[in-house]
Amino acid sequence: MDPWRTAIATSDETHIWIRGYDVTALMTRASFTDTVFLLHRARLPEAGERQLLDAILVAVADHGSGAPSCATARLAASGNRQSLSAAVAAGILAIGDEHGGAGSACMELIEAGVALATKDGVSIEVAARQVVKDAKANKKRLPGLGHRVHSTDPRTRVLFDMAREYGLAGNGIAFMEALELAAREILKPLPINIDGALAAVLADLQFPAAFGKLVFIVGRVAGITAEVAEEYTREKAMRIHIPVTYDGVPPREMD
Amino acid sequence: MDPWRTAIATSDETHIWIRGYDVTALMTRASFTDTVFLLHRARLPEAGERQLLDAILVAVADHGSGAPSCATARLAASGNRQSLSAAVAAGILAIGDEHGGAGSACMELIEAGVALATKDGVSIEVAARQVVKDAKANKKRLPGLGHRVHSTDPRTRVLFDMAREYGLAGNGIAFMEALELAAREILKPLPINIDGALAAVLADLQFPAAFGKLVFIVGRVAGITAEVAEEYTREKAMRIHIPVTYDGVPPREMD
Amino acid sequence: MDPWRTAIATSDETHIWIRGYDVTALMTRASFTDTVFLLHRARLPEAGERQLLDAILVAVADHGSGAPSCATARLAASGNRQSLSAAVAAGILAIGDEHGGAGSACMELIEAGVALATKDGVSIEVAARQVVKDAKANKKRLPGLGHRVHSTDPRTRVLFDMAREYGLAGNGIAFMEALELAAREILKPLPINIDGALAAVLADLQFPAAFGKLVFIVGRVAGITAEVAEEYTREKAMRIHIPVTYDGVPPREMD
Amino acid sequence: MDPWRTAIATSDETHIWIRGYDVTALMTRASFTDTVFLLHRARLPEAGERQLLDAILVAVADHGSGAPSCATARLAASGNRQSLSAAVAAGILAIGDEHGGAGSACMELIEAGVALATKDGVSIEVAARQVVKDAKANKKRLPGLGHRVHSTDPRTRVLFDMAREYGLAGNGIAFMEALELAAREILKPLPINIDGALAAVLADLQFPAAFGKLVFIVGRVAGITAEVAEEYTREKAMRIHIPVTYDGVPPREMD
Repeated sequence: MDPWRTAIATSDETHIWIRGYDVTALMTRASFTDTVFLLHRARLPEAGERQLLDAILVAVADHGSGAPSCATARLAASGNRQSLSAAVAAGILAIGDEHGGAGSACMELIEAGVALATKDGVSIEVAARQVVKDAKANKKRLPGLGHRVHSTDPRTRVLFDMAREYGLAGNGIAFMEALELAAREILKPLPINIDGALAAVLADLQFPAAFGKLVFIVGRVAGITAEVAEEYTREKAMRIHIPVTYDGVPPREMD
Repeated sequence: MDPWRTAIATSDETHIWIRGYDVTALMTRASFTDTVFLLHRARLPEAGERQLLDAILVAVADHGSGAPSCATARLAASGNRQSLSAAVAAGILAIGDEHGGAGSACMELIEAGVALATKDGVSIEVAARQVVKDAKANKKRLPGLGHRVHSTDPRTRVLFDMAREYGLAGNGIAFMEALELAAREILKPLPINIDGALAAVLADLQFPAAFGKLVFIVGRVAGITAEVAEEYTREKAMRIHIPVTYDGVPPREMD
Repeated sequence: MDPWRTAIATSDETHIWIRGYDVTALMTRASFTDTVFLLHRARLPEAGERQLLDAILVAVADHGSGAPSCATARLAASGNRQSLSAAVAAGILAIGDEHGGAGSACMELIEAGVALATKDGVSIEVAARQVVKDAKANKKRLPGLGHRVHSTDPRTRVLFDMAREYGLAGNGIAFMEALELAAREILKPLPINIDGALAAVLADLQFPAAFGKLVFIVGRVAGITAEVAEEYTREKAMRIHIPVTYDGVPPREMD
Repeated sequence: MDPWRTAIATSDETHIWIRGYDVTALMTRASFTDTVFLLHRARLPEAGERQLLDAILVAVADHGSGAPSCATARLAASGNRQSLSAAVAAGILAIGDEHGGAGSACMELIEAGVALATKDGVSIEVAARQVVKDAKANKKRLPGLGHRVHSTDPRTRVLFDMAREYGLAGNGIAFMEALELAAREILKPLPINIDGALAAVLADLQFPAAFGKLVFIVGRVAGITAEVAEEYTREKAMRIHIPVTYDGVPPREMD
């Protein structure tokens, strides 16, 4: 088999290097968030970049045991007490475009919207209106807008204020704010949710779209591990009984 | 890298062989259950062996959406509609010693019990009483006995009758029946559950203990896939809202 | 929480019903393959339907440890010996459109192709040529055609012959054979692979497209469980060493 | 269904609280590592505690694509390009006692060793020698000692030095150092590996034993996500071909 290749990490008998930095140097002088940035970007972050990435990871870490990722992990732990990794992995499997993963789709939308503005030589606002009109015409949902619970998501304002404070707000944030305005006019009030907020900030930090989903996984695994630990320590195995109504065919005989 | 090695399957440009049999011969002349047996035992089953393995796989396929394996798969599908495999895998991760996996532990118990009878030159009944007494003294649960719902599991009788009909009942079934009797005298009525029943039959068919858990996975994946398909077709994403009560520290300020 | 609903299975204290049939009746009179069909279709199969489903499940069960699904399961087992379910689930996670999952995409292609023939009032052959031309124009691959190893997949012929023998060949098989011919003329020789073959047969058996992927999972789990069992019994933990070449930035100092 | 209960996180229409702290306060004033500590300990860390947890998370983030967790994730991504979460979850499933998970077992060993010293009124050194003698007598491996690659793990020294610098070194570090010495005398030179090092530090920080495995998962997910992102961007699907030698029964006919 040909060797695989990687530009991420390597080691010899006495060293480990991550993106060229000795891991022992990183252990004493870098934070875990620095290392997440380094692993994905091949350089260490500036102070403002670190702060924003920290804020995003904290924002998505956990907001309650009933979210699909946390609830799936707890259900798996209820049936299987032999493997902490199995329960954590089950929780991660519940993360998709509908839960925690819309950041990637929203980053693609931002990229397309900003490219449209450049191509047509129009403002971000005009491009955002066009994107909303297209979504309305095609009856498609706009990722990053709207929320099941919050009328305005408190985390969005915090992220955008931080980005501006650090001079790191760019077309990503501009586009999402224009999109929210355009949606209010053309569709209905749809506040920027956390997926849209982190997508805007990550786009302005030049992350690739896939990171919009991966960053949610990295942050949420902090919460999932705590939920699994609580399930093991506070609850008995098999304690969860989901109520189910059967509405299929009634009892019948085989021929 | 040294090549891996396997005795299970191989192929060339025009053939695939499973345990030496051409897959096209198996496709026309063997059932899927024959192939499960072949994969795990390196020979095709006799008629009675196939019937018993069929019966076990059918017995564990599904008994309701609320079981941890099925419910975990549905919850994962609720958050993540991009991957059928992710939802099915999440369901499998809920299978452990507490749910679906006790068959392995019970097969080890049977093996130890039968070995005890042989070593001490006593009957299966005497060995079973000793095993129950040891469990009582050490406050350990006996795998394969007891049930949350059923006072007697209807599947146990069917499996044991089939094994006897085919002349395949041996020390495994004898030990589990003796264990149930001994438990009733020494502890309390604890009917043989499906894990105990399939463990007894698989022990009599000479399967290794690990298969007690693996057979549950193979059978249950039939049900899990149907549950996931139903979730996709009948339900919207993010439809599941687990009610949660927070009993942690009240809101507080950071220093 | 509102109860969930299902039309698949239910139970009371003394019974379990799958799609209305008592599980004890199924255990004695139905095969596992019958039960897979029943779970997904809400009725038991006719003899020919059962034979074809058996043949498909056998066809995809395993063809070697190096396939992504089997290799992923073995790698997971190499690092984690605490959980059989974890290793099996890891194997299932490697199943996607590129490996084992093209059946679903191919069933959608068949459905679209047959609908095109009906809408335009043209023959299946004409519709298939149009589909190939569209794929060529859009530089898209055709799911179900082409193979990394086999110049003609031996399993395809067996499945199509069986379907014809049972009188169950319909537009699905006709379309895939027309597609293969059209591809040979317009693109290059691309034999129908096993994904395309099972898609054709399942389309003719009226299965929904999702089943094209789910049936692969159900069949392959037989092989994955055998591969994991072999890994546990024949190999030591941590025996796998993937060779990797590092081609990233050289060692460097932190500022 | 009775509501589940949790002491971790809760939310209302305009707020999210983690362990009582408003998430927007945490986003601006706490790091992600602070939040990991908070989620698992229900309080924010002191400066030294944060530094040590950062160092541990960085230490385990990644050391090469060939480790089971990273390699499993890449293999899953090779077959399944539809789901980033599926690939990441597969990687986590490779984490077990043999790979990344020995920290938990080592924390239990430390707890037992320190309890033995207290109970018998002997020194940590005497207790450690007893633990090594017992392991030798029972032919059991000592978790936290020994390494496949490194003769001394560079990360161990860094962690212990940091713990001492912050005044946070206690019985955990003392026990592991005594254990290494005793093993050298009684068995052979077995350096403290990263699992043993993080176990010692986490024991001194009063974390429960389960966190020894969970912290590895939280740290490693940073590396796994980067490995999966690299696999998607640098490699084609299905590029991985594991070489396999078949050593099973030769081709044979069905009866």
